[in-house]
Amino acid sequence: MEISVMPDITDREHITLAHGSGGTKMHELIRAEILRFLDSPELARLDDAAELTIDEHRIAFSTDTFVVKPVFFPGGDIGSLAVSGTVNDLLMKGARPLWLSLGLVIEEGFPVEDFRRILGSIRRACLDAGTSVVTGDTKVVGKGDIDGICINTSGIGSILPDISIRGSGAVPGDAVLVSGDIGRHGIAVMAERNHLRLRGNIASDAAPLTRSVIPFLEKFGGAVHALRDPTRGGVATTLNEIADASSATIVLDEASIPVSSQVRAVSDILGFDPLYLPCEGRFLAVIENDATSDALAFLREQAHCTDAVKLGSVTEKSPGEVLLTTLSGGRRILDMPSGELLPRIC
Amino acid sequence: MEISVMPDITDREHITLAHGSGGTKMHELIRAEILRFLDSPELARLDDAAELTIDEHRIAFSTDTFVVKPVFFPGGDIGSLAVSGTVNDLLMKGARPLWLSLGLVIEEGFPVEDFRRILGSIRRACLDAGTSVVTGDTKVVGKGDIDGICINTSGIGSILPDISIRGSGAVPGDAVLVSGDIGRHGIAVMAERNHLRLRGNIASDAAPLTRSVIPFLEKFGGAVHALRDPTRGGVATTLNEIADASSATIVLDEASIPVSSQVRAVSDILGFDPLYLPCEGRFLAVIENDATSDALAFLREQAHCTDAVKLGSVTEKSPGEVLLTTLSGGRRILDMPSGELLPRIC
Repeated sequence: MEISVMPDITDREHITLAHGSGGTKMHELIRAEILRFLDSPELARLDDAAELTIDEHRIAFSTDTFVVKPVFFPGGDIGSLAVSGTVNDLLMKGARPLWLSLGLVIEEGFPVEDFRRILGSIRRACLDAGTSVVTGDTKVVGKGDIDGICINTSGIGSILPDISIRGSGAVPGDAVLVSGDIGRHGIAVMAERNHLRLRGNIASDAAPLTRSVIPFLEKFGGAVHALRDPTRGGVATTLNEIADASSATIVLDEASIPVSSQVRAVSDILGFDPLYLPCEGRFLAVIENDATSDALAFLREQAHCTDAVKLGSVTEKSPGEVLLTTLSGGRRILDMPSGELLPRIC
Repeated sequence: MEISVMPDITDREHITLAHGSGGTKMHELIRAEILRFLDSPELARLDDAAELTIDEHRIAFSTDTFVVKPVFFPGGDIGSLAVSGTVNDLLMKGARPLWLSLGLVIEEGFPVEDFRRILGSIRRACLDAGTSVVTGDTKVVGKGDIDGICINTSGIGSILPDISIRGSGAVPGDAVLVSGDIGRHGIAVMAERNHLRLRGNIASDAAPLTRSVIPFLEKFGGAVHALRDPTRGGVATTLNEIADASSATIVLDEASIPVSSQVRAVSDILGFDPLYLPCEGRFLAVIENDATSDALAFLREQAHCTDAVKLGSVTEKSPGEVLLTTLSGGRRILDMPSGELLPRIC
């Protein structure tokens, strides 16, 4: 990926919430500032995990810090999220998660009971993901120096043999699959944060996807051209990244986008587009079109993937765009967002 | 290491600053809470880094989150500290640092100029340490949700062939060496935080020690029985950990403890004992006594180690204690501290 220093950030004086959004402002911060100083080829790829080699063994290495607010939400908490997030980043590089580190920063006065609940979630998510915490660090800071707790997990995974997955491999003709319905995590956290009383329960989709992604890659890995989890910025932003990195256009069919009626209803009320809401237990696969029906049939038998569908296709024209064919038959561009939609969602 | 659930933490309701101190309260939190939920054998060893195997290649994996206040201090900043801390943890397992991850949490409104300065420090420290940042994550949180910036680094290192270093290898007769004068980091940060106007300049010792520890281990590795960096809790706490893990008593000679006159003077005024002040560019080596003079002569030629000296010896009696032979010829026990001496020092 070409790294250019974008001049307009040099005029800004302060970091803003938009710089953490997952959208264009964050890409700007990363390219204009971080990559200017830290210029390793692995980092410059801007993948969710770095691909590294020890002797001849390919490993993936990834890191993620979690600042979600509130720390407990329907379907999960900061602990399960911290494991899922890093595990899924490793999986998106075709790597089987092996080991996690756990860096805790805790505010003085944080209830021990809540801390135990979070540790229990970390334990269960690790068991589910087939990994374990092997090293850690604990810092406690004064009251008001941090808002509750913040958790960093870093992870090492072993890349499956004969698998080579990058965010940039999409080619015209490929199908774009999503492993389940979208938007749950964003709505679950926002509803909890804003004390919305919802009829029915919208639970976050947050989950480690080892038990679905590894079998999927073992069977269909040769046909998978790109794999990403649609976290910050959601499906639209992640597909923009794939389209941009692959210099290809992706066309989505609005009618096929899986959104539960509850998520749809709350999104309408709050003014969110589910295509931009983060998921924490879903993945997008760009796959050879011929493999689509077998892949979908297989995925629907796997954990967390029963609602897998084809979302759209990769086309040739106008490299780097994502287009939506709307229900009424029109087409509109799905841009990458510039500002911050949902701070502290993960 | 035997893990027992210590009952007294179960009566506490809230996390306190003492739980992040590096002393007995932190060990209590780790053993009674964290290891109860997260029980991998690697984590239970409570080393600064986990030893793991990929194929037959031994690697070390470590993590550390940095919350130092203020972020800039004489001799360094949170960026150089974040690299040094994790690099040194890898080195203390006998591992050559290969790759770092970088997890940033930044407060909205943080000056871009300061951010650049920190990135520049990270870059220089990585070059010095012979490593690079290969993967990263950036979160921005709202004003007041964090105090400025917090940085997690995790690192992967390659353990040198034929080297096996643990915190528990000290045996009676061994010599205890320290690689330079102690207490600088603690005093530098405290002085800056409290706006003390000091005559002369006490700079932090924070530095990545790759260029001294790797040659030292290549030459003397077979004679090194334990290696640790005296960070939180300082020399006294770290030696207590070694003594406890090794079931051996360590006796220090007060006359031989290297403390600069400036650090000594400020410590006296502020009421600190330099033996409990954190260092971020020093290491303690427990080594076969016969190798002492050669090792010291060699170390004094290496970067950051010109003031290396023998501090004391490992003796047989009263397993697990650290004793100090005072200038007046008496002996006193150097306990592990229980509470928090210096919050947000790293």
